[in-house]
Amino acid sequence: MRFRVASEIIYDVHSPSTIILNIHALRTPTQTVLEETFQIEPYVKTKELNSANGENRLVQFETLENKHLHLSYQAVVDASHTLMDSHQLSDSPVMQLDASVVPYLFASRYCQSDKLGKLAYDKFGSFEGAYAKVVAITEWIYKNVDYLSGSTNSQTSAYDTVTQRTGVCRDFAHLGIALCRALSIPARYFTGYAHQLNPPDFHACFEAFIGGQWLIFDPTRLAPLNGLVKIATSFDAAHASIATIFGSITCTGMTVTCEALDPDFLPFNHQDLPTRALTLSGYLKISGE
Amino acid sequence: MRFRVASEIIYDVHSPSTIILNIHALRTPTQTVLEETFQIEPYVKTKELNSANGENRLVQFETLENKHLHLSYQAVVDASHTLMDSHQLSDSPVMQLDASVVPYLFASRYCQSDKLGKLAYDKFGSFEGAYAKVVAITEWIYKNVDYLSGSTNSQTSAYDTVTQRTGVCRDFAHLGIALCRALSIPARYFTGYAHQLNPPDFHACFEAFIGGQWLIFDPTRLAPLNGLVKIATSFDAAHASIATIFGSITCTGMTVTCEALDPDFLPFNHQDLPTRALTLSGYLKISGE
Amino acid sequence: MRFRVASEIIYDVHSPSTIILNIHALRTPTQTVLEETFQIEPYVKTKELNSANGENRLVQFETLENKHLHLSYQAVVDASHTLMDSHQLSDSPVMQLDASVVPYLFASRYCQSDKLGKLAYDKFGSFEGAYAKVVAITEWIYKNVDYLSGSTNSQTSAYDTVTQRTGVCRDFAHLGIALCRALSIPARYFTGYAHQLNPPDFHACFEAFIGGQWLIFDPTRLAPLNGLVKIATSFDAAHASIATIFGSITCTGMTVTCEALDPDFLPFNHQDLPTRALTLSGYLKISGE
Amino acid sequence: MRFRVASEIIYDVHSPSTIILNIHALRTPTQTVLEETFQIEPYVKTKELNSANGENRLVQFETLENKHLHLSYQAVVDASHTLMDSHQLSDSPVMQLDASVVPYLFASRYCQSDKLGKLAYDKFGSFEGAYAKVVAITEWIYKNVDYLSGSTNSQTSAYDTVTQRTGVCRDFAHLGIALCRALSIPARYFTGYAHQLNPPDFHACFEAFIGGQWLIFDPTRLAPLNGLVKIATSFDAAHASIATIFGSITCTGMTVTCEALDPDFLPFNHQDLPTRALTLSGYLKISGE
Repeated sequence: MRFRVASEIIYDVHSPSTIILNIHALRTPTQTVLEETFQIEPYVKTKELNSANGENRLVQFETLENKHLHLSYQAVVDASHTLMDSHQLSDSPVMQLDASVVPYLFASRYCQSDKLGKLAYDKFGSFEGAYAKVVAITEWIYKNVDYLSGSTNSQTSAYDTVTQRTGVCRDFAHLGIALCRALSIPARYFTGYAHQLNPPDFHACFEAFIGGQWLIFDPTRLAPLNGLVKIATSFDAAHASIATIFGSITCTGMTVTCEALDPDFLPFNHQDLPTRALTLSGYLKISGE
Repeated sequence: MRFRVASEIIYDVHSPSTIILNIHALRTPTQTVLEETFQIEPYVKTKELNSANGENRLVQFETLENKHLHLSYQAVVDASHTLMDSHQLSDSPVMQLDASVVPYLFASRYCQSDKLGKLAYDKFGSFEGAYAKVVAITEWIYKNVDYLSGSTNSQTSAYDTVTQRTGVCRDFAHLGIALCRALSIPARYFTGYAHQLNPPDFHACFEAFIGGQWLIFDPTRLAPLNGLVKIATSFDAAHASIATIFGSITCTGMTVTCEALDPDFLPFNHQDLPTRALTLSGYLKISGE
Repeated sequence: MRFRVASEIIYDVHSPSTIILNIHALRTPTQTVLEETFQIEPYVKTKELNSANGENRLVQFETLENKHLHLSYQAVVDASHTLMDSHQLSDSPVMQLDASVVPYLFASRYCQSDKLGKLAYDKFGSFEGAYAKVVAITEWIYKNVDYLSGSTNSQTSAYDTVTQRTGVCRDFAHLGIALCRALSIPARYFTGYAHQLNPPDFHACFEAFIGGQWLIFDPTRLAPLNGLVKIATSFDAAHASIATIFGSITCTGMTVTCEALDPDFLPFNHQDLPTRALTLSGYLKISGE
Repeated sequence: MRFRVASEIIYDVHSPSTIILNIHALRTPTQTVLEETFQIEPYVKTKELNSANGENRLVQFETLENKHLHLSYQAVVDASHTLMDSHQLSDSPVMQLDASVVPYLFASRYCQSDKLGKLAYDKFGSFEGAYAKVVAITEWIYKNVDYLSGSTNSQTSAYDTVTQRTGVCRDFAHLGIALCRALSIPARYFTGYAHQLNPPDFHACFEAFIGGQWLIFDPTRLAPLNGLVKIATSFDAAHASIATIFGSITCTGMTVTCEALDPDFLPFNHQDLPTRALTLSGYLKISGE
């Protein structure tokens, strides 16, 4: 399925600064970037960082002060979401996880799974199998946490959200990840472009590793799962900010768009999850397991 | 310099469990494992995880319940610590960091650098150059935080330690890392065996990335820097536990030893740092930059 | 109903110190201290503080260093618990609260009701009337929080317990108080002696203000409600420590006992609460409202 | 010294609500309210709460929904600030504190003195005498914490501010209180009208109990100490909100003024503190100690 994605960001630069940008569509065996342009006006030289594990495509640049920068990114991306029968997904015991997956069992800045163990087991431990557990986690978050812009800030973590129960997509994702890890299910943060997201913005949800696959879950239910274009996966938002800024910069404008180019795009929504699961990571195909 | 390191751990296993063990001396271009034995009595089959980025050598195994396990690890390791003139260390601006180093700028579970920015700049921002900053951070921790066994627990983070000012090696390391990252200096957790550590135990300190090198700093001053044998580096202790246990297991005994085999071992202590820096990571030699 | 209560505390005093002790049975219109002895061996002069609002009977004393102090308190107390039909308890709207009750609506050190508002409304808001709400809160805590000695420390607060879900009587009480206040129901900490508490110790539970009365609730269910002898009520444990110590002192021993002197004492347990409520404060009788 | 104080608050009421208002100038032996008017347009019946300990003059009222309320308060107040030679202030040992002062030694919602003990002793323990310690605390806060509107929220506590080091008057006061209590110096929150405060607003600072007196300290240095008119004292802001609202209400406007009526008002600023202390509580005169 092809998507046209775009983002524009306007920065007022007050001091000499370095920016690490995380807005490029990821290139993976199951997500192909067909066309892509990225420019900064006025021109600034950039450098792409190639992450060892293929989790993101960071772009770095430096800028002098007193600049008004206009960044624009556009791409056409072919994202191959795979649907599968969820009943065929066996659990992935810790002993079978390989070294690239194990770190996603551990607590991170915004996902303090070490503090959520008892709550996670009490609420979700009785569901049979990892897939049912993560579906239950995702539904619980959807039902108990209110989506409310401005209710949280950059320091809000899963430990807050589990009690305060308001937040934005980032907070929903962090709580989902923390609860999965508390149940020994590897989970990671997913940030991307989302078709039909309203209002349009960068989106965040999460992936859980079940049956040898990284499956996508979105507790916000704000966009179809098969309308996601991946920018990055990471431990949590601390490792996947849209922009990490070293210096004094104000963001004065941002627009994000994502549009399915196939006229007969058929949304696959979260409500369909209990029986069918979705992946955009294609782990199986890569490793040949 | 050659070291003989050893650790013994005794577990009482109450339920079928999986253990991820993180006690093996790391193999790197600057640290060679000359001899090594690892056994579990009674015999249990184990699996070594090869981390993509060479940060650790995790060993996994499963065990049934009602077992009394005796783990013993012994190795002879040649660790090539390199001393250098600290005045030759130029800073490593963010723009020059490669993709393997950038993630160590970000906040993690126990190192909430995002909350420590102002304090770090106020206290250490005026020191000239990254090396002087990290030396100042390390000395400040040494002088202001009391080493006190039992004063902290597995949830204690740098945000606590910066105010409560007691802790163990792990807490000292977390605070050092968080303050470095708050100043845009990449920093990571180091866990290892330590010669002359008293009482003997696994040790933790931290590395900061300066002048293209991962340099070792130890705010506890409890062991010579050139007496360290590396087990792992990681974002923080959440990613470098000695043992991550999935199941019900009690640790009923542990001994750790580390001994320099060279009779004329000359300790290089933290007090010598202002003019000379020490690395065990040999980054420059690997990358040829 | 008469009770014989007693406590012995042994202190090793390492530096000149001041102690504020909070172990004396409170004197109120509904709790009469019939006999009482308090001694410190070797002799130390003490001073009783008469709290303006009658919430406690603090005893202060100073001691020199290198002392081994043996404190012993004994009393016979007549505590008049009143049972009432819970269906007759009307709510106490904020507008009807008088100035002595209003402060128990506010957040305190261990009872961060300001952070628990949404959770409290979601879980308990639909119960009809304040009494049913507090019964539901008390049952929820009993069912979801595990009583586990040593699982918490002096910094653990309701915000932790609502997620971590283990604790001791103090933590159970703090969570109950915080949830009540989050629903605009005044609530306060209750510390006392408890008949049939096993193992014997000082006990903590809470009172909520409903229908013009301070009613007792105990989410631990560890002792009969009509077996409680009041030491103090307060905002939370920060204002009702058994002993507040200014100096360096180690507690090397403590025994607490509480015994109903009436041979036909009939325990009134928490399970009986839905239909009958219990007070030891006798607010109505005092104020004549 | 006479002051004219006034405040106007405009509320949009969305649901039937109860409001507890805390804006009336306190009546004490050293602060006389000479004239006073308070009205709500359209008319709403109000009730004044007489606090047992004279810490505030709360006014309660109920309102129906769909109202647009205009509250206006005006008063002429004679506030008798007393200056004294700070060298004559002896310490107030815990043993000499009476029951009305002891509670201000304890931790509260926003002033977690229990967590700040070591830091407080390390930084301020070596100053001779309680007065010098509190002056040092006040100066340290002034120098290390940035006054920055909007940098904190209603959940920010002293434990945050001691590290994050930005805040508003409320945060400055909380940190001062917490550090005093950590050193066993009673301290309480002060909220009031402040002459020459710019921009005009309600103000917060703190009082510490030294030499038998409640002395005023203001780490913000934003207003003369002898230009303060007291509204309330309390454990912290949890007990002294300008308005505690039970219901759904939006504040759509607020103005606050305070003006010295004596043309030769001579400001006494915080910089003058080391040698002269100031009280508005007149404790000595009341108790005759």
